[in-house]
Amino acid sequence: MNATTKSASPSKLTTPTDRTIRVERDFNAPRERVWKAYTDPQLLAQWWGRGNKLVIERYELERGGHWRFVEHSDHGVHGFEGRIRQVTPMDLISMTFEWDGMPGYPTVTTAVFEDLGDGRTRVVSTMQFYTPEERDGMLHSGMEGGMNQSYAALDAVLAQL
Amino acid sequence: MNATTKSASPSKLTTPTDRTIRVERDFNAPRERVWKAYTDPQLLAQWWGRGNKLVIERYELERGGHWRFVEHSDHGVHGFEGRIRQVTPMDLISMTFEWDGMPGYPTVTTAVFEDLGDGRTRVVSTMQFYTPEERDGMLHSGMEGGMNQSYAALDAVLAQL
Repeated sequence: MNATTKSASPSKLTTPTDRTIRVERDFNAPRERVWKAYTDPQLLAQWWGRGNKLVIERYELERGGHWRFVEHSDHGVHGFEGRIRQVTPMDLISMTFEWDGMPGYPTVTTAVFEDLGDGRTRVVSTMQFYTPEERDGMLHSGMEGGMNQSYAALDAVLAQL
Repeated sequence: MNATTKSASPSKLTTPTDRTIRVERDFNAPRERVWKAYTDPQLLAQWWGRGNKLVIERYELERGGHWRFVEHSDHGVHGFEGRIRQVTPMDLISMTFEWDGMPGYPTVTTAVFEDLGDGRTRVVSTMQFYTPEERDGMLHSGMEGGMNQSYAALDAVLAQL
């Protein structure tokens, strides 16, 4: 393990309201590169699935566009999908997010990309739920560990860009 | 206008919370018939669009299924879509509902069918929103008038079954 890997900052998960989750994570790469890793389907496929094979069936990254990703893991096949609410280049992606295992329970996930001015980028992701129970269900699903695995994979992708 | 048309009960719209809308409407038909008008695409197309042409592109009425309707009116073409959360035959349909004009802002719409025991059926529809602002936006969109037009068209469909 080298110094770069060690210096990856941990993500910070907070719950600003009883229907939201906020995750903040800094990346050792300029904003343009982080944006590219989020918006280029070939790059996204390398980290979003946490090391598992990810098939990007749709990724229409514009207002009103649809997206659908299918993750193939040792534990089965999991589909995720939603629709794009807003895209502001280099700045923000907001979309609904729904897991096939709980159809009809969308959340709104918004990622904001902040240039830290020193070559690093902060990504603040918020998830909005209809009810506190749905929010708590997500918290107890192991989502924090899954996000950290994705972010570690994203660190590796960014280091190679 | 005949007596049957005159006797159609008005719908009752209430706002049980600042993020929900509830609409109650009684129909002069037994529950099996009302259920059929909601679940048979050919019948649904006759009333859901309030007299406008409605193209039912998808209507996969099962948990996890997708639906998409396109209404063609004098004022333009409007697409609506979502995904099925739950279907309990004769009893309940719950689905997300999203208008193409506001993509990424789904609501959860749940219709409950109640047998009133006298040959009539009460349909209670609730809409759940993420925020009070989204709820108020729907209230001010003319949705109540639109629903009443749909329900009047449904009265006519039910009278012919």
